[in-house]
Amino acid sequence: MKINEAVIAVQQQLTEKRFKHTLRVAETAVILAKKNNISEEKAELAAVLHDYAKFRPLDEMKRRILTSSLPNDLLQYHHELWHAPVGAVMVMEEHGVTDREVLGAIHYHTTGRAHMNGLEKVIFLADYIEPGRSFPGLEDVREMAQVDLDHACWLTLRNTINFLMGNKSRIYPDTFHAYNDLTTSLNGGN
Amino acid sequence: MKINEAVIAVQQQLTEKRFKHTLRVAETAVILAKKNNISEEKAELAAVLHDYAKFRPLDEMKRRILTSSLPNDLLQYHHELWHAPVGAVMVMEEHGVTDREVLGAIHYHTTGRAHMNGLEKVIFLADYIEPGRSFPGLEDVREMAQVDLDHACWLTLRNTINFLMGNKSRIYPDTFHAYNDLTTSLNGGN
Repeated sequence: MKINEAVIAVQQQLTEKRFKHTLRVAETAVILAKKNNISEEKAELAAVLHDYAKFRPLDEMKRRILTSSLPNDLLQYHHELWHAPVGAVMVMEEHGVTDREVLGAIHYHTTGRAHMNGLEKVIFLADYIEPGRSFPGLEDVREMAQVDLDHACWLTLRNTINFLMGNKSRIYPDTFHAYNDLTTSLNGGN
Repeated sequence: MKINEAVIAVQQQLTEKRFKHTLRVAETAVILAKKNNISEEKAELAAVLHDYAKFRPLDEMKRRILTSSLPNDLLQYHHELWHAPVGAVMVMEEHGVTDREVLGAIHYHTTGRAHMNGLEKVIFLADYIEPGRSFPGLEDVREMAQVDLDHACWLTLRNTINFLMGNKSRIYPDTFHAYNDLTTSLNGGN
């Protein structure tokens, strides 16, 4: 899928506000990709497509989870998590996107996962730090993103787990595994 | 194992400071058990024995993990976690304790786990709130322990996860599963 086709397809799926967020994520992702020797082209495409399913009806997302190879345990967690894995399935089926890295980056952009590849980290982080975001602790993550992609993702995961615990929300296992995995990396593998 | 035998056996295993902690955990556990209609006798025995393996050499604990049915993934986490499951194995082998509830309460007193039973919750909580402890946030947990065992355990798990993340430490999966499980309970099963 070409980037200009993706932009048009996504604009039809989103509110104007969310579309502008998407464009900022794409700008941020390209900068992070360049800095970390990751394909800027894939980063831009994954970023543009990352929220593709954001406003699909919950019933439809639920059905796609049940009828695809996506893990059904998603349904036991907040529906805010569903659009990411469902979006990966939908851009494949509705627009023929087959690049596994791009699909993975869309799939894991909300939860993260253990052993994220570079592109997954870039999209996960870009979605969190894009310039339209504003919340306590974000500046620290933005600064870290300039120097250490792994450490910035770790801060994002820690903040996300804290935020969820503050809301008395469950934490999706992939998020927890991502935290443990990057903690191991930060501690030099121990 | 009778309680006075357990006290003597444990005293031989611990420093004086840790032995005094153990006695305070036992007092706290009995109060919590009584309040929640849980066997005070089992609570006292499990509390007295909970740190049985605390000062065993790391090599010995490692060997017990590898040669028992304990999960080997413990070895990938901080050795501070080992004494609890190893202690359950040791009091069984060295003192013939066979009560599954007592052994479970010893095993999970540091990490917690999903679907803790009442005795496990009592020991997990008593170890955290016994009167010798002092750290920020503890008073809230002590107050909650007077009214809601589940909610107090949930606060303990949240504090523990926060503490571990503050130290850039990994979180043992049982702790995370315990948090998610009690979050579900607090939210009325959803």
